[in-house]
Amino acid sequence: MNSKPEFQQFLTEQINILEARFPLLLNPLKSPDILKESMLYSLNAGGKRIRPVLLLSVLHAAGKPLEAGYRTAAALELIHTYSLIHDDLPAMDDDDLRRGKPTNHKVYGEDIAILAGDGLLTHSFNLISKDEHLSADLKVALIADITDAAGPEGMVGGQVSDMQGEGKELTAEELEAIHHRKTGDLLSVSLMAGGKIAGLNEEDNKYLSLLGKHLGLAFQIKDDLLDIEGTVEEIGKPVGSDAGNDKNTYPSLLGLDGAKKKLDIHLNEARMNLQRIRHFNPVVLDGLITYIGERKG
Amino acid sequence: MNSKPEFQQFLTEQINILEARFPLLLNPLKSPDILKESMLYSLNAGGKRIRPVLLLSVLHAAGKPLEAGYRTAAALELIHTYSLIHDDLPAMDDDDLRRGKPTNHKVYGEDIAILAGDGLLTHSFNLISKDEHLSADLKVALIADITDAAGPEGMVGGQVSDMQGEGKELTAEELEAIHHRKTGDLLSVSLMAGGKIAGLNEEDNKYLSLLGKHLGLAFQIKDDLLDIEGTVEEIGKPVGSDAGNDKNTYPSLLGLDGAKKKLDIHLNEARMNLQRIRHFNPVVLDGLITYIGERKG
Repeated sequence: MNSKPEFQQFLTEQINILEARFPLLLNPLKSPDILKESMLYSLNAGGKRIRPVLLLSVLHAAGKPLEAGYRTAAALELIHTYSLIHDDLPAMDDDDLRRGKPTNHKVYGEDIAILAGDGLLTHSFNLISKDEHLSADLKVALIADITDAAGPEGMVGGQVSDMQGEGKELTAEELEAIHHRKTGDLLSVSLMAGGKIAGLNEEDNKYLSLLGKHLGLAFQIKDDLLDIEGTVEEIGKPVGSDAGNDKNTYPSLLGLDGAKKKLDIHLNEARMNLQRIRHFNPVVLDGLITYIGERKG
Repeated sequence: MNSKPEFQQFLTEQINILEARFPLLLNPLKSPDILKESMLYSLNAGGKRIRPVLLLSVLHAAGKPLEAGYRTAAALELIHTYSLIHDDLPAMDDDDLRRGKPTNHKVYGEDIAILAGDGLLTHSFNLISKDEHLSADLKVALIADITDAAGPEGMVGGQVSDMQGEGKELTAEELEAIHHRKTGDLLSVSLMAGGKIAGLNEEDNKYLSLLGKHLGLAFQIKDDLLDIEGTVEEIGKPVGSDAGNDKNTYPSLLGLDGAKKKLDIHLNEARMNLQRIRHFNPVVLDGLITYIGERKG
């Protein structure tokens, strides 16, 4: 099935809409200009917008209006962006470049970068709590799910485990568990949030959750492969930086071929679960799965 | 009116209950041990617990059961604790001691300290979103108010303004506006959250909000005075550290006597607004106001 044109159109259109909304969401804030500038600098630094697009794709697949999803979609991108700003700090990965541009702390200083991250994280829940398109019950469910995925049991916990694993030899299972939490949980919850806003039933949400699980792992394996095979122009950061940091990666554990095989397995599992969801137009999500597996950066 | 005994009893009792609950809230998390340890280290490091106690005092004054307030109260203390961990980082205030103990990053390293802060902040909204004692509407209102107070328009914004003001000469009005956001907003919202959970009417909530505003400013002035007059044992950090950092403080702007006069004005305004709230037992809150003005650390 060649779903590229419709998927590509959806992706381009939605990224444009999202990126036009970020300044509208942040500029009206009564905050110091330097803080808004710093938050918007990282939010506007490009990126694939996969998390918000996943949420919106589910609404599209279920034939629901997208408008009810935009604030939660933006909130997910704010959370992702905060995590990148904090990850790049000297005390963490100490990265100077992100998506080909100087990292937040290189431009604004470490103090503002820490606070810009804190501000984006806090404001993400403000956006959801004030969304006029969602019921209070739905907002509470979304905040519960997203804080599960982004907090100490999810992304933050995965980041700690990843740091603790550096320099140690991990099994493939241990690495998978770390990546589940570090990247997979937020990707998964983006799909699940779409499912909840769309009003999918429990069974379909289960398939969506499995789709998200496999997509998250595929995403991380692809990231590791790009770190070896990509060029600095394509991935926007120095190639081979993971190996230099003594990080555990899929290629280092399974070899290049083993990692590629694992990538295909997870992409296929994601596709299978997508097909199981009823009354669902799979074209855009199928395109996203392929895109995540084939992306060059 | 001598309200000390009942207020003191309430304070001691509620602090004990809160501190016993912190480990119960965090230890069950499926997170790396070092992350939980680091979050609990700062959460358990003592402190006055003023924000949660303010919330619980409002419920007490309104004659409502306290149980409905404990999770939101804990969430406020998690947020306050995250802000202290991040404030103490080398890139921010670079403090080695907090409440007489080594700061989080001194014990766990900067990377874990940043993530412990992120984890506490994220989890605070998880606690509220999963609180079985509150309606969805109430939870959404609380999260909206608290993220207003803690986010880019509140605490985070105030912190940025405070940093930008260092080394510059500010007017008393500018300093007041900064402190409103940096400290006052979270203290105010603690009272307001209590008012919402207690179901106070709009007019009484307005008085509560004014009470919070004046109490927040009194709190900050007292902090500045303690920095000059306190001893290192009492305030748990080196005396005079603000002056060393070239910070704007009330005593530096208004003189010692001027700052003390200003403190009294805000304490009296707080008391006046407390008296305006109907069907309200003011004893504990009145004691808290006095305590904030007279505390030694």
